[in-house]
Formats: sequence, C-alpha cells, structure tokens
Amino acid sequence: MFENEYDVIVVGGGHAGAEAAAAAANMGSKTLLVTMNLQTIGQMSCNPAMGGIAKGQIVREIDALGGYSGIVTDRSTIQFKMLNKSKGPAMWSPRAQNDRMRFAEEWRLMLENTPNCDFYQEMVNGLLVENGKVTGVKTSLGLEIKAKAVVLTNGTFLNGLIHIGEKQLGGGRAGEKASTGITEQLLYYGFDSGRMKTGTPPRVDGRSLDYSVMIPQPGDTVPEKFSYLDTPVLKSQRDCHMTHTSALVHDLLREGFDRSPMFNGRIKSIGPRYCPSIEDKINRFADKDSHQLFVEPEGWNTVEVYVNGFSTSLPEDVQFKALRSVKGFEKVKFFRPGYAIEYDYFPPTQLKHTLETKLVENLYFAGQINGTTGYEEAASQGLMAGINAHLKIKGKDPFILQRDEAYIGVLVDDLITKGTEEPYRMFTSRAEYRTLLRQDNADLRLTPKGYELGLAKENRLRRMEEKLSKSDAFVKFFRETSVIPKDINPILEQVDAALVKQSDKMFKVFSRPQVTMDHMLQLDSVSDFVSANELDREVLEQTEIQVKYSGYIAKERNNADKLHRLEDVKIPKNFDYSKLKSLSYEAREKLKAIQPVTIAQAGRISGVNPSDISVLLVYLGR
Amino acid sequence: MFENEYDVIVVGGGHAGAEAAAAAANMGSKTLLVTMNLQTIGQMSCNPAMGGIAKGQIVREIDALGGYSGIVTDRSTIQFKMLNKSKGPAMWSPRAQNDRMRFAEEWRLMLENTPNCDFYQEMVNGLLVENGKVTGVKTSLGLEIKAKAVVLTNGTFLNGLIHIGEKQLGGGRAGEKASTGITEQLLYYGFDSGRMKTGTPPRVDGRSLDYSVMIPQPGDTVPEKFSYLDTPVLKSQRDCHMTHTSALVHDLLREGFDRSPMFNGRIKSIGPRYCPSIEDKINRFADKDSHQLFVEPEGWNTVEVYVNGFSTSLPEDVQFKALRSVKGFEKVKFFRPGYAIEYDYFPPTQLKHTLETKLVENLYFAGQINGTTGYEEAASQGLMAGINAHLKIKGKDPFILQRDEAYIGVLVDDLITKGTEEPYRMFTSRAEYRTLLRQDNADLRLTPKGYELGLAKENRLRRMEEKLSKSDAFVKFFRETSVIPKDINPILEQVDAALVKQSDKMFKVFSRPQVTMDHMLQLDSVSDFVSANELDREVLEQTEIQVKYSGYIAKERNNADKLHRLEDVKIPKNFDYSKLKSLSYEAREKLKAIQPVTIAQAGRISGVNPSDISVLLVYLGR
Repeated sequence: MFENEYDVIVVGGGHAGAEAAAAAANMGSKTLLVTMNLQTIGQMSCNPAMGGIAKGQIVREIDALGGYSGIVTDRSTIQFKMLNKSKGPAMWSPRAQNDRMRFAEEWRLMLENTPNCDFYQEMVNGLLVENGKVTGVKTSLGLEIKAKAVVLTNGTFLNGLIHIGEKQLGGGRAGEKASTGITEQLLYYGFDSGRMKTGTPPRVDGRSLDYSVMIPQPGDTVPEKFSYLDTPVLKSQRDCHMTHTSALVHDLLREGFDRSPMFNGRIKSIGPRYCPSIEDKINRFADKDSHQLFVEPEGWNTVEVYVNGFSTSLPEDVQFKALRSVKGFEKVKFFRPGYAIEYDYFPPTQLKHTLETKLVENLYFAGQINGTTGYEEAASQGLMAGINAHLKIKGKDPFILQRDEAYIGVLVDDLITKGTEEPYRMFTSRAEYRTLLRQDNADLRLTPKGYELGLAKENRLRRMEEKLSKSDAFVKFFRETSVIPKDINPILEQVDAALVKQSDKMFKVFSRPQVTMDHMLQLDSVSDFVSANELDREVLEQTEIQVKYSGYIAKERNNADKLHRLEDVKIPKNFDYSKLKSLSYEAREKLKAIQPVTIAQAGRISGVNPSDISVLLVYLGR
Repeated sequence: MFENEYDVIVVGGGHAGAEAAAAAANMGSKTLLVTMNLQTIGQMSCNPAMGGIAKGQIVREIDALGGYSGIVTDRSTIQFKMLNKSKGPAMWSPRAQNDRMRFAEEWRLMLENTPNCDFYQEMVNGLLVENGKVTGVKTSLGLEIKAKAVVLTNGTFLNGLIHIGEKQLGGGRAGEKASTGITEQLLYYGFDSGRMKTGTPPRVDGRSLDYSVMIPQPGDTVPEKFSYLDTPVLKSQRDCHMTHTSALVHDLLREGFDRSPMFNGRIKSIGPRYCPSIEDKINRFADKDSHQLFVEPEGWNTVEVYVNGFSTSLPEDVQFKALRSVKGFEKVKFFRPGYAIEYDYFPPTQLKHTLETKLVENLYFAGQINGTTGYEEAASQGLMAGINAHLKIKGKDPFILQRDEAYIGVLVDDLITKGTEEPYRMFTSRAEYRTLLRQDNADLRLTPKGYELGLAKENRLRRMEEKLSKSDAFVKFFRETSVIPKDINPILEQVDAALVKQSDKMFKVFSRPQVTMDHMLQLDSVSDFVSANELDREVLEQTEIQVKYSGYIAKERNNADKLHRLEDVKIPKNFDYSKLKSLSYEAREKLKAIQPVTIAQAGRISGVNPSDISVLLVYLGR
C-alpha cells in the first residue's frame, strides 16, 4: 500500500507534528503525517491562544524560519495584544486569542497545500528498527510504512490517563483514545521514560455567564500580528474578561481536596509549575484568598468559553459548585469539566542538538514527548526536528540554533543539556542574551538561515532585506543629521527633558529615554524622510530600537561572541571522561551521560563547575 | 452539578440527535445534548452529501416543519442538483454536496444559538429508570443527569466494531471509540436488540487523482437549495467526477475475498441493500464488469475526496491495489481505507408512532438505533422524537404524520409497523401517495403544522402563505383568462402541438404535456401578471405543477382520503386479539406484537390480510 519508502514520517498532527511535516515537506522530503484522526490536526487541546511572554517570540522565530504557526495564528486570531509594551523591547511579547475551529482548519488546509506532504489516519503503535536505525512505523492494524526518518510527536497520548476526582479513564485528550505500544518498544531499546502531568480547566457555556460584572480585557487598539508575511490584519476583535476567585470559592474547592488525585497520591507525576491547577494555587499560596481568572472565548461565533486559571482535576461536582461562586459564574453551565492527564515522556537528555535520539538513529522527538509544555515550545521543536530529519537523510550538515540566535536555540540546548523533570516552559529569563532575541528582529536573525535551508521562500527574504536596509538607512539618517535647538527644544519641553543649547546629532537626542519615535516624527525632516522612503510601522519600530538600545545590544553581542569561543571548542565524539581523574565525580558522570558537543555546552550542565571546564580546556589543548 | 432536572436529554450529536435537541429546545423544553465529543456534532460520517431521491424530500419536510437540516445544508453546500428533473414533479429530488467541516460547524453554531439547548461532553452508558419510566442518564464518569424524557440517537456507536479485512477494532467511527453499556441495560428491561452493518469507502488525496480522464459531474446551472427560508443561493460550485471500475479492478478485489469479513462469515449482520460494498456488487452482479464510481470533494478547499461506490471492508492492501487500477486513480494515495462497522440496533416495532418505546415510558429512539440508514432518515426521526418528547412531558397530544402527509410519516409508520431486518432507506416507491409528497410542496403540507407546534416560526408561515396565495391566484388567472389562436398558436407550433382554432382558457392549453411555464411566459398577459404580482421561481413552479398535474393530484388526494376513513377507526389500547378466533393465527400474533393504533395501521402489518381487517372492522362495529 505504501510501496514507496517515505523520506520522513511524522507521527502526530498537533503543533509539533504539523510543523515537522510542513518543514520536511517544504524542504523537499517525501513526507507522511500519520495521526489517529485527520480531523484533529492542529487542535488547540488547551487554551485558545498563541504566544505570550517568550512564547510569542518563539512563534515569530518559527515564522521567520518559514514555519506555519504564525500564519495559521494570524488567519484565526480573534484578539491581539502586545504584552509588556511598557517595558524594554526585549520583553515585548505578542499574544493572540484564536478561533479554535478556524485554527485547526487553517493548519489542515495549509498542510494539504504543501507539496510532498501526504496524510494517513491510523494509530502508530510501533517503530521499525534495523541495526539501531529507524526504518519506519507500524500501525495498530498491522500496516508497515517505511521511511528514512521518523519524528515522534505524541503529545499527551502515550499511555494517556485522564483524572477527574477519583475517576480515571484512558485517553489522549477528552473524548479521544490513548496511544499504546510506542513507550514499551522504546524502553526495550534502552530509553528511559517518565510520566508527566498536565491539566485543563472546564469549558463552559458563555450564554450562562454574566459579563457585566467582569472586567473586559480588550485587544490592542492597533493590533499587530505574528507573521512577517502579509497575513491579514485584524479588523475587529473579541474581548476576553477577567474575574476572580474568592475565599468562599477556595473553601468550596478545599472540600474536594480529599478526593483530589493531586493530593491523595494518585497522580505522582509533576505538572507545569507555571500553569498550576487552581487547587495547587490554593495549596501553595494559602495566604492568598483570590486568584485571577481569564474568561476566553473559543472563537468568533461559538458560545464555548475557556476559563483560564481554573485548571483542575477535582471531582466535577466540586469544580461546578466552586465555579458557581465566582463572580459572573453564578449560573454557569459546563460543557465539560476540567481534568488532569498523565502521559509518558522521554527525558530529553537522550537527544542530540538536532532532536535526533542518541539511541536510535534517524528517530526524532518533538513536543511534549520531550517533557515540554506549550503549543509554541512544541511547534518549534517540531520545526527543528523536521528540518534536521530532512538534512540528515539528505546527507547535509545539521541545523542548530545557538543560544544567542534564538529562543528556539535556548529551548533545545536547555532540554538536551539540562534535561527537565517538570514540564518545561520558555521564559525570557532562560535566555542569557534576551536583548538580542527580540520579537521585532526574529526575521533579521533567522530568515537568512531559513532561506539558506530552502524553507523560507524568496519573498520572505526580500521583505526582510527591505526592512533591514530601510531601518539601516533611517538609523544612518539619525546618526548623520543634526537638529538645531529651535526645532528640538519644544519637543524636549513636552517630555520635561533638559533642553539643548546647540545643535546636535539627532541620534544623540533620540537616545534619551524620554524621547520616542513619535516625538522625532514631529520634526519635519524626519517625517519627510519617512514619507520619501515609504517607511512602515515595522521599520520605524526597528529603527527606534536600534537607536535607543544600541548600547545594550552591542554589549550583549560582545558577551555572546565571547561565549562563541567556547562554543567553537568541540569535544571529540565518544570522549572518554573516565580518564580525566581531575574532573569531579559528578561532572564525569554527567558529562558521560549528556555527551556535550562543545565546551560551552559542557559548562551548562548542572553539576559541571568552572573548575571542570578548566580541566577540559587544558586537556583539549586550550 | 445538574441540580435542575432537564425536560429532555438527547444522547448523541449526529443528524438525529442534533435535530432532536433543536426541536425540543425550540418548542420550549429545557434540553441537554450529551455527546462523547462536542467537536463531532453534526459529523457527516459517510458521504459529504445531503438529499437525493426521496431523501431530498425528507430534508425539505424537516425544513418545512422548522428543523435545521435544510438550513445547515444550504450554508455548507458546494454543489446542488435537482435529480429526476426530466420526470414528473413527484420524482424531483434535491441533492447537495457539502463541505464536511462547514456542515458540522454550522450545526454546532445553530444549536449554540438555540435557547434552552445545553451541551455536555461525556459518554452516556446507562439510563435512569424508575417504575418503567426513564428519569435521566448515567455517564461513564458516574454522573447522573435527571430528565423527564430521553432521546437515544447512538448511531453506529453502540458496541461498534470496525472491520478491515481480517482485522477488527472497537470503535464508533474511524478514530473514535465505541459506546458501551446502553444495549446491555435495555436488554435487561426486555428489549430485543440486533446487529446491523454499514460501510464506508476509502478517503483519498485529491492531489493524487487524474481528473482529466474522468467525466466531470457539474451541479445545476441554476442551483436551487433546501430551505424555504432565505438561506444563501450558491454563487459557485465544485464539480464531482465519474469514473468506473473494470474487470481488472474486480479481479484484484476478488483476490482479497478470502480475507473479506463479508464472505468469510465474520460479519453476520446485514448491511444497507442499496448502498452495497464494492465486493458485494461484484459478487451479486457477477456478469457486470464495470460499476460507476463518483468522486466527491469533501469541501471547498480540502483535497480530501470521497470515493462514492467503493465502500469496502476488504483488507487495505487489496482496496489500494484495486483502486489504483481505476481510471484516474493510478497514483491514488489513501487518507484512510474503507471499512465496515457493526453496531447494535433495536427492532423498531418496539416503538410507538411517536418513537417512544413501548417498554420504557418517555424514552425515545431515533436514527440508526432504529435500524435505518441515511442522514435524512436519521434527522427526520430525531425531529419527530424531539417534538414528541416535548409534547409528551408537557401533557400535549402526540404529533404523528400520516402516510399521505409526509415521507416522514411513511418512514415512521413503516418502521414501527413492519419493522426492518436490514438498514431501512427511504424510496419514493415506499410512499403510496408520492404525487402528494413532493419536494415543492413540503412547506404547504407541513409548515402550518410546524407553526401550530411552535416549531416553525412566524416568518416561515408568512412565506408559505404568500407562496400559496400567489400560486393560487396565478392558477386562478390561468383558469379564468382566455387566449386567442393568434397568440397561442405560434407557441404550439414551436412544440409541434395541435393548433387551436378558437380562443380557449389558458389552463386548458397549459395542461397539454408539451407546454411549459416557459412557453406560457411568452404570452404578454402572462408575463405581465408575473411582473405585476412579483412572482418568483417557486411560485411559477408551484403554479405549473398545480395546473399540469391537477388531475393526478386530485385523484391521489381522493384515494388518501378513503384511507383516512380507516385511519380514523381506532383500535382500543391493549385490545385482546386472542378472543377473536376468526383472525388467522399469524395475524393474531403480529397484531399482539405490534399493537396497531388504527385499522389502517393494522392493514399495513405484513401477515395481516384483508380478511383479518374485515373481522376487526365487524368486531369494532363498522
């Protein structure tokens, strides 16, 4: 039936699987996406939103490289916000609320319109492995499909077990069955596996809510978007709403604690620290008698509502009674209760930087199977796995992003170097060089690389180059053009800044913290330059950042470059650490387990100290 | 959690369940739709099409009564055809190809916009029954939800078992789990159950097909629609295509017959006679070496394609190899193979005319659970069950459609009177009075009834009344207006009809078989009347039918009225047939089992002969 071998088989059609299939296929690999249900491709299993702090940057990076998440998001956005706009640009983080159905439909259609991407609906419950190399997959109906590489993106489906109060049922998602067989086989091949847990709040009927007592959370007045391409700009938006839990709500929830699988020991695995269940929040922050809840619509037209902040696996009657005591929820009707789900993951230290497993060649893991949480984290891993699976089987060099190049680089390096024992989520604080890794410059950082890979297309590169040359020219204009006191002082007065006494370069005045692009545009010469060169919002923003943060950026660039010297010191493959007796015992064990590729990576392993690094450097002749 | 009792709980969200919930809620019952997955409401499990011969009439009837199927269909139609347009108007049958995703989305949104209709996602695996009366449902998580009436619409999910070649797996639909518990409980309450079988063809990748060697099947040049309301008219359409199997294809399929669950005895239950699998067709019509296949797109944008006519449960490799030998399918890629599914049904003679079960009060069955096949058959039963559940619990008279009033009446009466041992499908030949039961007059027949029920709204009644008064006026115009030879003879010449020598009533000329409305419109007086009265297409069509078929219609009306006399002879409840020794033994047994409500119904039971009816009539004093 599948007489011809595929280049790449992707198992799973969620955020990771969809990006993996798109990347491999777009680069020219004959690709097959196998999923248990073709109608659930691109499902948002949890909240109907993309992006957020650090996560929004990741989506921009995926888009800059030529992935689809940004485009799919833009085509299904119902509300857009740029978070942290009051902070420095390194913190600006785009976030969108999405129409859940439209999001999935866009993913499906984009994949269908991707040449080389085939589809098959079936449960994969085994891998074909020959001589330590994956050669395809086996399905539950006994079908064998051959491929040169396989990407596993099983999400929460591997031996998924759903918990609601004292009840448990097998399943990969509410209403969908679990996937079996793969974990068992991988254990046989020597993999370590573990269990993780995640949860989701109840879905409720928006018609039963009283929005008049909640606080509206509208989108930005001038909504932006994710993709650097010309995806549609929002013409209208839907509001979210905020409400709060109370001491009464917490008391009602506490009444169910003895039946909670979280507290009675039934769930042993660890959930996402920064997406805790409401019972967890009450337990850990016992002094707080109120928590925020965000009431998020699930689409343009549907009445279904997501209760962000109320994730729970308490018995459904407890969930219900407590939620009915929340302001605005007095008459709430449930579509379905919240629940927790436990699933198998594989500690990601078993992977190379390419996301290929160390134990089975040409087998790649992406998404929750690696112990991460979040759509964006999953999508970016899928993209990287898809790219690297393609490169590997075509005999090309791997594609690895460094920590100073992308959040995606930070993510992968953290995972494979440090591993994770709880669901890993991206934060800006995880990136040493976050001033470099901004949402505004993901295209400048990554589109040339995406283009070189054959993933980002010509038009994407052209747009990036135009933005770059225009903002460079505009920065140059500010550097070279002077402004006289008569023109600039009225502006400085507006912002209570010290006046200038003689003419000065615009760049210098613009560098002052109080002065923004909007102020500079009040100068005729500046606004004339903008119109003459047809500079758009993106170019203005980029220019402003380059002018106002040039010092910080240069400094961080310099630090990053220093690091690169260590990144350049490669450690030979299968290096025998046992002979280096001057290494601490712990460092020897960890280095042996992780097998870092460079000295820099070795230095990031927990338990490997600077003294150990010195030993290694001396041994390697540096 | 569900502290307030519901009026009506509907189990299942397919065509039957969705119509049942809409009807009960629109009539004012507090209604809960419970389904295993809220995302699969309104799924087209098999082909992406609504209507067809006799089935199209049913959809028009549902719409006329105030059901949703017609509206949902119109909003998601990608191609429309009026079938049998070359035959008499009783045979005209509307049929639409649909966008599968859009169809389901429209259903979901329409239900969400229906006041009184709540939703809950969970598997119902038991009923609450007290003193022979249903009082609610139990879910797989142990939740009990109270209701005054319950409608079961479980489709193919009750103990569903999927067959592909020699492989079997539990499931209600590809990729979805089966539902358990309900059958077992109903058996305990004394119900008879049986197994039925249905099947579906492979879904394939449209990008892999060569349409240039197939025969395009475009929609009608002037597409109509289903709803009598102002749903959108199609502006563009997608083509279907026709191709054929061949002797080679049949040979390749035969190679798998020894592994066919149909032929090796693994599937014992009976499938739909008029939707046979391809292996069945080959087997039964061994002399034919070619069968038609219709290649149907699954939506506006998707590449997924439905291969109508190639339903099969042969092993997937056999399906694939054979399909690859079909013209245009030489490079076909599968999205998923065809399969057969066996499921539990309950012989519908266990139901009353209201679709309430005889054994458990306030419990209603609709759709495949009653042994029917087809979306339209299911939807109409759902509608009737929803209506009657509402009426019953509000203490109102039941709503029963007679055989001369609607195909729906024929369907229900056939089911509960004759039962069915194979999946029951509607045909025009099942209706004695099909000249009365046309697609053009479903509104005239049923909208007043729907309005009286509170289901059809004011605007629907107004539209119907306007159509009726306008067409009556137009018919009257033809009856009263004369035409002179000079005006009419040129038209008669066009159609080779005998010329008239003196002026005559237009009605008489128009009654001639060769003369159509288009011809009549060539007369200035006719076209003036049309413009002056703003008559639309529907009124013209209705008038033409009233003029040209008035004789047939009157005759059939007369026959139907005769029947009504027998329908009016009620048989007392719990009538003791055993004391009527003059009845044949078979008639006594059947009458005891079916418990017909009228003499007419008694006469339709197979095994009850006219002599038995005479005995009954005498006994009942007629």
